[in-house]
Amino acid sequence: MAVVEQLVLEPLAASLDLDAFRKNGHSLVDWIADYLATLEQRPVCEPTEPGDVRAKLPVSAPERPEPFSSVLDDLDRVIVPGLAHWQHPGWFAYFPAMASPASVLGELAAAGLGVQGMLWSSAPAVTELECHVLDWLVDLMGLPQSWKTTSAGGGVLTSGASTSTLTALITARERCRGLTGASVEQMAVYASSHAHSSIEKGARLAGIPRVRHLDVDRDFSVKPEALDMAISQDLEQGLAPAAVISALGTTGTTAVDPVRGIGELAAHHQLWHHVDAAYAGSAMVCEEFRHHLDGVELADSYTFNPHKWLATSIDCSVLWVADRKPLNDVMGIEPPYLRNDASDSGQVIDYRNWDISLGRPFRALKLWFVLRTLGAEGLRSLIRLHTQWASDLSERIDNHPRLRRIAPTPFALVSFIHTDGDASTRALAAAINDSNRFFATVSEIEGHPYIRISIGSTWTMRHHVDSLWELIQESTGAMEEASERENPWER
Amino acid sequence: MAVVEQLVLEPLAASLDLDAFRKNGHSLVDWIADYLATLEQRPVCEPTEPGDVRAKLPVSAPERPEPFSSVLDDLDRVIVPGLAHWQHPGWFAYFPAMASPASVLGELAAAGLGVQGMLWSSAPAVTELECHVLDWLVDLMGLPQSWKTTSAGGGVLTSGASTSTLTALITARERCRGLTGASVEQMAVYASSHAHSSIEKGARLAGIPRVRHLDVDRDFSVKPEALDMAISQDLEQGLAPAAVISALGTTGTTAVDPVRGIGELAAHHQLWHHVDAAYAGSAMVCEEFRHHLDGVELADSYTFNPHKWLATSIDCSVLWVADRKPLNDVMGIEPPYLRNDASDSGQVIDYRNWDISLGRPFRALKLWFVLRTLGAEGLRSLIRLHTQWASDLSERIDNHPRLRRIAPTPFALVSFIHTDGDASTRALAAAINDSNRFFATVSEIEGHPYIRISIGSTWTMRHHVDSLWELIQESTGAMEEASERENPWER
Repeated sequence: MAVVEQLVLEPLAASLDLDAFRKNGHSLVDWIADYLATLEQRPVCEPTEPGDVRAKLPVSAPERPEPFSSVLDDLDRVIVPGLAHWQHPGWFAYFPAMASPASVLGELAAAGLGVQGMLWSSAPAVTELECHVLDWLVDLMGLPQSWKTTSAGGGVLTSGASTSTLTALITARERCRGLTGASVEQMAVYASSHAHSSIEKGARLAGIPRVRHLDVDRDFSVKPEALDMAISQDLEQGLAPAAVISALGTTGTTAVDPVRGIGELAAHHQLWHHVDAAYAGSAMVCEEFRHHLDGVELADSYTFNPHKWLATSIDCSVLWVADRKPLNDVMGIEPPYLRNDASDSGQVIDYRNWDISLGRPFRALKLWFVLRTLGAEGLRSLIRLHTQWASDLSERIDNHPRLRRIAPTPFALVSFIHTDGDASTRALAAAINDSNRFFATVSEIEGHPYIRISIGSTWTMRHHVDSLWELIQESTGAMEEASERENPWER
Repeated sequence: MAVVEQLVLEPLAASLDLDAFRKNGHSLVDWIADYLATLEQRPVCEPTEPGDVRAKLPVSAPERPEPFSSVLDDLDRVIVPGLAHWQHPGWFAYFPAMASPASVLGELAAAGLGVQGMLWSSAPAVTELECHVLDWLVDLMGLPQSWKTTSAGGGVLTSGASTSTLTALITARERCRGLTGASVEQMAVYASSHAHSSIEKGARLAGIPRVRHLDVDRDFSVKPEALDMAISQDLEQGLAPAAVISALGTTGTTAVDPVRGIGELAAHHQLWHHVDAAYAGSAMVCEEFRHHLDGVELADSYTFNPHKWLATSIDCSVLWVADRKPLNDVMGIEPPYLRNDASDSGQVIDYRNWDISLGRPFRALKLWFVLRTLGAEGLRSLIRLHTQWASDLSERIDNHPRLRRIAPTPFALVSFIHTDGDASTRALAAAINDSNRFFATVSEIEGHPYIRISIGSTWTMRHHVDSLWELIQESTGAMEEASERENPWER
C-alpha cells in the first residue's frame, strides 16, 4: 500500500515541495517587482481583442503537472499582454484599485496561513485582528465611537461595496418589515439620481421593487426636500419607505450628499440610513475632509473600500453598523456543526453573523500590513498628494478657455468637458486614451459625455499628472479666447 | 512644491521601495515555508481565550511607518499563537480549506498584478482566464457541455458557496415571479432537512419566507416523494414553489440527494433546481465519483468550492448555470461610467452581470496555477488518497465493537459515534481534540452528538490518519464484545 501511495504521490512531489515553494516564491516576488518597475513602459491598456487571451491557452487542462517556470513564463506570454494595468502610473480611470507593496505581502501572508474566520473559534486571530483594525480606523477617521466592536456597533470586512450595500439593504428590509409589517413588495428605497449602480442592484437583489432617484442640485448633491417629498408621496400611496442611501462621494463626480439632512429625515421617518463612502471614505484619515462626515453619527450603516484608495489590494470593503443587533438578527444562523463553547459564551464576535459569506478569508491581515508599514502619516500623505494634484489640475482646467469642470473637486476626481461640445469632449478623451500612456473614463450625465480623471494609483507621481495635462493642452488646441457657443452643461 | 512633496513622500519611501519589496517578499515566502514545515510541531488549535490577541495589539494604529521586519515578527508573536491551523496535517474539522503552494503563489500573483475583472474591458485576461479555466473544469469533471461559457451557460467565480447559493436563489425568485406572477411573500424553497445552513440563510436574505425541510432516508438523502408532497401541499395553499436545492454531499454526513429524481420533479413543477456540491464537487475530477452526478444535466445551477477540496486557497467558489440569461437579467445593470465598446459589441462576457460584486479580484489565477502545477493527475491523486484513507478508517470503525458509523462514507468524511451513548461520544471527541494533535468537529443529529473526521488537508499523510486511529482506539477503551445497550442511533 505504501508503495502504491508513493507512486501516486510522486507526480505531486514537485508541486508540494516546500523548497520548491521557496524558490518559486522568490522568483514570483521578483517577477512582481519587475512588473511594477517596468509598468510605465507598457501601454496602460494592452491592445486586446475578444478571444485573444483564450486563443493562447490549450483547449484542455494539463493532464500532467507542469513546472512552475512555465506558469511564470505564461504570465508574460498570456496574462500581461491581455490586461489593462490598474497599477500603471498613468491609470486615471474608474476609481483606483490602489494596491501597495505592503498589501501584496499581506495577501501573500493570508494565503500562506490558509485560515478562515467564519467563527471566532475557527481562527481567533482572524476575528480579533479584524475587530481591532476596524476599531483603529474608527479613531483614525474620526468616526463615531459607537461604531467600534467594543461598543454597540462594529465593523466587518466584505468583498466590496456592492456586498456591503446589499447587506445594509437586506437588514433595512427586515427592520422595515418588523416596524411596519409591510411586505417587501410595498417597500421603497431612496437615493441620489447620481447614486452608484450598486444601490439599484442591491435593492433589486433584496427584492425591493422600487428605488426613488432623488433630484440633485447643481453640484449633483441630493436636495433633502426631494427626499422629504418622495417619502411623503410614497406614504400617501400606502407604500413603506425602508431605506435611504447618502452618497459620500458619488462615482460620477464625487458629489457629497447632505448626510445630516438626510439622516434627520431618515430618523424622523424611521428609515434605515446607509452612507456609501466607497471611494471617498479613505480621505477621512485626513482631518480636513471630515466636514463631509457632518451628521454621520445619525447613520445606521456606512461603507468604504480600502481597496479603492487606502493602498489595500482588492478585495477589501468595510461595513460599519451603529448597532449590530439588527444585522446579526438577519445574518445569524447556527447549525449544529458550527456550535462551540466560545460562541455559546456570548463573549466573542462570530463574523458569520455579520456577513453574507460563511467562509471568510483573512482580509484584515493586509489592512494591518498597510496601516503598520505606511503608518497613519503615510496614508495621509498619499491622500494629500492625490487631492493636491487634483486641485492643481482643476485650477489648470478652470484657467483654460476651452475646458470646463462640470463639478467641484472635493477629493481626487476631476470631471470636465471641452466647451466646444460633446464631439470635442469625446475627441479629447480619445486623444488621452489612444496615447496608451494614460487611461481615463468617459461617463455621461443626461446623455452628454464628460471626462473623469481619477488620481489614485500608488505609482502616480506629480510628473505623470503634469504630462497628462500637457497632452490635454496639446489635444485641446491652441489657447484662444473662450468659446462663447452654447453648451449643454450650462445650467 | 517639489521640495515639499519630497518631504511628504520621504516617510513613504521605505514602504513603496521595490527593492525593499523584493527583500521583504523573500523573507515572507521563507516565513510561510517555515510555518508550513513546522506546523506539525504546533497544537492544531492554539490555546486562546477571547481577547488574547487584541491584548497584544496597541490601542491605536501607528502614526509613523514601522519596518516590515516588525510586522513579520508580530506574525509569530501575535497571529500564529491565536490561530486554529487549518493547514495542519492533523486538521480533520469542518470541511478542509485545502490550500497548496501553487495556490498561495497564485494569490500572490493576483495581488501583485492588482487588476480587477468587473468588465471584460477592465482587464480582458481576468475574464478570459476565468471563462477558460471554468470551461476546462467542465470537461475535467464530466459536467454538461452546455455549462461552458462557449455555450448557453457558463461559470463564474464567487467568494463562497453561500454567495453562489444566494445568487442562485435570487435568480430563482425572479424567474418564479416572471413565471407565476407570485409575490416573494408567497414563495417557498425546498431542501433536505440536512441541507447546509446557507440554504436557510440564502432564502432569508433573498426575502423568501419559507424553506421546507424535506425528510431524508436512513442515509440522510432526500426522499423525492417528500419533495413531491411538499410541493403539492404548497400549491394547494396557493403558494409559489420557487426553487429546490439538491445536496451533493451534505455538510453533516456528505449524504447525496437523488439529483435526477429531484431534477425531474423540479422540471415538472417549473422550480429552479440548484445543486449544492460545495465540498464533494471537487471529487468529480475522478470518474469513479461521477455516478453521483446522474441527472445533473437537469439542474439550473450548480456550485462547488475549489477552496474546500481542490487545493485552492480561500476564497474560491464556482457557480455554473445551464442558461446564463436569467442570471444576467437579474445581475445586469449598466451605468454610463461602465459603458464601453466591447460590452456594446455583445462579443464579451462582463462578469458584473453574473455576480453580486462589481469589483472582482483575479481569482481564476490561483485556480490556473493549481491546475497547471498539480495537473489533472495530481488532483485526482489527492482526492483518491483522501477517499482511500477515509474508506480505510471507516473499515476500522466498522470492525470496532464500540464504534459505529452513522452514515456511509462516499467521499472523505467519516461520521461515527461511540456505541455507549452520547456521553461516551463526547468524551471520545474531547480526547481527540484535547490531544492538540488532531482537530475534529462534533456535530449533532436530532440532538445526539457524533464525530466528523474530514480528511483533506494538503499536508495530511496516511500516517497522520493512522495516528488518529491509534488515539481513537486508546480512548475508546480496550477491545471488548460490542456493547448491546440501546443507543439513539438505532433505526
